Amino acid sequence: MTPPPAGKRGPGRRPGESGTRQAILDAARAQFAAHGWDRATVRAIARDAGVDPALVLHFFGSKAFLFAAAMRWPFDTDAAVEEVLSGPRSQLGERLASFFLSVWEDPQRREPIMVMLRAATTNAQAAELLRETLMTVFLGPLGSRLEVPDPELRMSLCSAQLIGLGTARYIVAFEPLASLETERVVELVGPALQRYMTGEL
Amino acid sequence: MTPPPAGKRGPGRRPGESGTRQAILDAARAQFAAHGWDRATVRAIARDAGVDPALVLHFFGSKAFLFAAAMRWPFDTDAAVEEVLSGPRSQLGERLASFFLSVWEDPQRREPIMVMLRAATTNAQAAELLRETLMTVFLGPLGSRLEVPDPELRMSLCSAQLIGLGTARYIVAFEPLASLETERVVELVGPALQRYMTGEL
Repeated sequence: MTPPPAGKRGPGRRPGESGTRQAILDAARAQFAAHGWDRATVRAIARDAGVDPALVLHFFGSKAFLFAAAMRWPFDTDAAVEEVLSGPRSQLGERLASFFLSVWEDPQRREPIMVMLRAATTNAQAAELLRETLMTVFLGPLGSRLEVPDPELRMSLCSAQLIGLGTARYIVAFEPLASLETERVVELVGPALQRYMTGEL
Repeated sequence: MTPPPAGKRGPGRRPGESGTRQAILDAARAQFAAHGWDRATVRAIARDAGVDPALVLHFFGSKAFLFAAAMRWPFDTDAAVEEVLSGPRSQLGERLASFFLSVWEDPQRREPIMVMLRAATTNAQAAELLRETLMTVFLGPLGSRLEVPDPELRMSLCSAQLIGLGTARYIVAFEPLASLETERVVELVGPALQRYMTGEL
């Protein structure tokens, strides 16, 4: 078999497609971060990427799928599950709090979660996306490894505590919670998460 | 002294002012509920109320103050503090959870809190407003009545748990949390609130 000439690609791929795709994703990320779910438009994203809006939809199908593709989850979820599970079982809650805070303390890493959360408060499709992402890639796998009854219930309670912690500390900035050292926050919130994960409910 | 003629008012008040003010508040409430903080505009509110935008600003000073005036807190905060405090101290957390859920279960009553929360995720001024409102009118007074060390810290932790519960159950709709009976949610979340309110931290 003779290899295809250099630069030749298979059907359905055109030269420069991956560059165009990346330009759309970069534009989408900037638009969603700056304007939120509601005000970011496919039209503006296409303009910033220098392409036709129809091409954006051809590549990504809808604004929701584009959003999902652009807002990459800001951590390696498999590694995160292992990190939370590794160590004494009595400190699962503290490790989950500690991991969560390590992501949110970094403005670059918390930005995609904040954008998703903002979007979820105004748009049912975005809420579904956050729910599916968080449950499918992180909390679901973590819960299934705990060997406890009702893992989904436990994980939904953890998600409530964590979303509230993120919102209260980093978005609404309730004091003194917003100014505490992360180690202290882990001590304060860890036991609540521990009970949700392994306690009698 | 002769009373002023009927219909005459003091300086700075014009006939119909309270009706106009009410029309602006009604228009603002509808605009903020429908479009959120960011997209609701003073111009659109003025148009719906049938007045000039300058009059809106004359009455309310700014979009933030208009928002605060329009989004009335959906419960009697003094009565709420008494309700949570009345009963066994060991069930403070359950009563706070129960009260919170009674407000959020009613779509009419949760709407203003959801609008404030949405606004807070996109706008620092709105975040400050939510923070001040919640702390000044409800959680602050409640905390000061608990006779515990660090009441502000405890109340900011309660606010994190409650905001997260509201978001996870009613906005993002994490299952099975979103579908549970309220009595069960009280059992599940009450102990975490109890520890934040009165436990060793």
